[in-house]
Amino acid sequence: MATTWKLRYAKRMRGMGSSAIRELLKLTQQSDIISFAGGLPAPELFPIDEFRAATERVLANYGSKALQYSTTEGYEPLREFIVNKMAHYGIQAAPDNVLITSGSQQALDLIGKILINAGDRILTERPSYLGALQAWRAYQADFVTVPIDDDGLRTDKLEEALCSGPKFMYILPNFQNPGGVTLPLDRRQTIVTVADRYGIPIVEDDPYGELRFEGEYLPPLVVLDAEMINDHIPSGSGNGFNRGNVIYLSTFSKTLAPGLRLGWIVAPAEVIRDCVMAKQGMDLHTSSFVQMVAYEVLKDDFLKDHVSRIRQVYRERRDIMLDAMARQFPPGVRWTRPQGGLFLWVTLPETMDAAAILEKAVANKVAYVPGTAFHPDGNGHNTFRLNFSNARPEQIEIGIKRLGEVLAAELEYEEELAYSV
Amino acid sequence: MATTWKLRYAKRMRGMGSSAIRELLKLTQQSDIISFAGGLPAPELFPIDEFRAATERVLANYGSKALQYSTTEGYEPLREFIVNKMAHYGIQAAPDNVLITSGSQQALDLIGKILINAGDRILTERPSYLGALQAWRAYQADFVTVPIDDDGLRTDKLEEALCSGPKFMYILPNFQNPGGVTLPLDRRQTIVTVADRYGIPIVEDDPYGELRFEGEYLPPLVVLDAEMINDHIPSGSGNGFNRGNVIYLSTFSKTLAPGLRLGWIVAPAEVIRDCVMAKQGMDLHTSSFVQMVAYEVLKDDFLKDHVSRIRQVYRERRDIMLDAMARQFPPGVRWTRPQGGLFLWVTLPETMDAAAILEKAVANKVAYVPGTAFHPDGNGHNTFRLNFSNARPEQIEIGIKRLGEVLAAELEYEEELAYSV
Repeated sequence: MATTWKLRYAKRMRGMGSSAIRELLKLTQQSDIISFAGGLPAPELFPIDEFRAATERVLANYGSKALQYSTTEGYEPLREFIVNKMAHYGIQAAPDNVLITSGSQQALDLIGKILINAGDRILTERPSYLGALQAWRAYQADFVTVPIDDDGLRTDKLEEALCSGPKFMYILPNFQNPGGVTLPLDRRQTIVTVADRYGIPIVEDDPYGELRFEGEYLPPLVVLDAEMINDHIPSGSGNGFNRGNVIYLSTFSKTLAPGLRLGWIVAPAEVIRDCVMAKQGMDLHTSSFVQMVAYEVLKDDFLKDHVSRIRQVYRERRDIMLDAMARQFPPGVRWTRPQGGLFLWVTLPETMDAAAILEKAVANKVAYVPGTAFHPDGNGHNTFRLNFSNARPEQIEIGIKRLGEVLAAELEYEEELAYSV
Repeated sequence: MATTWKLRYAKRMRGMGSSAIRELLKLTQQSDIISFAGGLPAPELFPIDEFRAATERVLANYGSKALQYSTTEGYEPLREFIVNKMAHYGIQAAPDNVLITSGSQQALDLIGKILINAGDRILTERPSYLGALQAWRAYQADFVTVPIDDDGLRTDKLEEALCSGPKFMYILPNFQNPGGVTLPLDRRQTIVTVADRYGIPIVEDDPYGELRFEGEYLPPLVVLDAEMINDHIPSGSGNGFNRGNVIYLSTFSKTLAPGLRLGWIVAPAEVIRDCVMAKQGMDLHTSSFVQMVAYEVLKDDFLKDHVSRIRQVYRERRDIMLDAMARQFPPGVRWTRPQGGLFLWVTLPETMDAAAILEKAVANKVAYVPGTAFHPDGNGHNTFRLNFSNARPEQIEIGIKRLGEVLAAELEYEEELAYSV
């Protein structure tokens, strides 16, 4: 071959993120670096013994089924499990409203595949989840964004953004990634009402909803939307949920184990049908083995106590991180105080550049993800995301101290520059 | 919501296949129907005990790692395993030439994602694998096809098709799905040489290569391509494989278990890098748990004896099916005689319609996949695919007898019609 592959490609991937940052973050896998960059659950909480017992039962009793091809829609008992889970929220879904996916990342890709044409605008929060931006950029989506504040998406800015005619809006209502912020009830109501009025579907991504440490439970958008429909349609006219305007995504990655790659979509049956067709061409189906093992772990209400243990541990780590930040970070740095989830969000003074500082942070053996990665428009230079679920308490203390040193030195340097002018 | 989702979709999936046939094939899951329609391995050969032992070892020794997020590229020991496998074929690949995928269906989707722009032409065999057509239609590919005969793709028709400027060509060299045919060495050489001359990459799909029952081993296209490169570049100038023109796909679905969803791509490092970026947006990575368990089963040369057992059983089933067809099928019906794999291909007289006959076959408790599904251009009305790996010998006998009855009745009816004219 005379030509290289590069020359032969007519299609190039867009906006895959700075490879410099990518390379830098690879360094953070070195064992002496305390990384707050990932979004990893605490591995010491994984229910390994339950998985051992469940796998043994599945292979002993249904081995051939677990190792064989299965349907694209997903393992029927697991779909029923999700239906029951939704019923707890007050959603009357049926199994044909549920699709099992290979992690909720696949759900994002599926949504891109069935909904996005090149050049379509997607409305997202600013900042928003990196993985969604990445999935949808592959479909050549453009983004229109609405800023968040400490209460999540600023609904006073929503209609303006909707006027640009987005294909759908993407919302993380609980303990948002990366912001760590949560939408209060009134904003949820506004979003659902306005979305309905404009006829713009909502993709609701709720990976962390069960990990609330404090404050009141708030219904997901999909529930509020269903309630609104039920108020308007005559009872007994079929599954009202199928008239809904929300595609709801969640995952077992944060409550059970991310290494399974197991998530789900709940949506009107018509949407699920199209997703099934698309998924068939993507991976035929999610591993039968994984689905059956997960169901075997889950079926006897295992998550109830297990999730409450996760909440307790993550709450402690959040508190330690917030406390350490208050002591170690220089004045002028602000951050969010999440009521749950895995992440918090730091804003530096405008003049500072989190991507440039990352290099110094890594040299001081601590890491984070610079905020630009979460901004479709490349803004957010003075922001970064911290994860508090993965590192142990003593590591959080040390890591925040190291980060505080770097930020203080940087701020001091900036002030010297300012004085010398 | 006043509007339905259908109205709100601007993007519709194209050519997802006839839903009538889809519905009909759903019926074949009834237990009294003998189905030759699927592509399922024989479940009684799944190494369940090995999986039990392997899972126990993985969870006991590396539980946290197996349940945690991992890298998009795949589990390093499994990538090394593939490198060694390729070395047996004479390919000097490195781990960065290997990507682990969620089944080889995901590899097909990945290739669509990095290579296909709307309207691109893809060159395929006619007929070709349904799953590839489905994956690439989602990227709005068009197809240009080259017919097969009993020796696979007709290379005398290849250059004509190449003149239409396809983005790549897609070839299943061994025991083709659905044709059951195998490319002889001289055609393989021709394909590799011509592809190189035209600068058209080859996507080589080889899920069944290890399941050869008889006849001589033939090198995959990727090997012939690498040999051609090695003849032309000075030795010691780096990994020659990275200059190759072939993207090679395979899977553990036919040798280990399809319920795992575990496949792989071997390609120049540059292609793998782009696939990794794309896969990140698709499912982050393939289940760590599944990869580690599969590696634990595979690592001590387990496949050697296991695959030889599979070959023996499938060979026996192929022989029984061929023998029963010779006895039960009416004159005028032709079929291929595969040297391996899972499928054979039946051609009826021109006047007959396999899709229409399927309804009668299902009524007589036997099923197949009509050939049109495998034809990008909708031709192949008088053809169908039979699977011989899944049903047990006695079922194959009965199923072919039932199918013979349906075909004989249909042929008789057609002859009566002809006489009555």
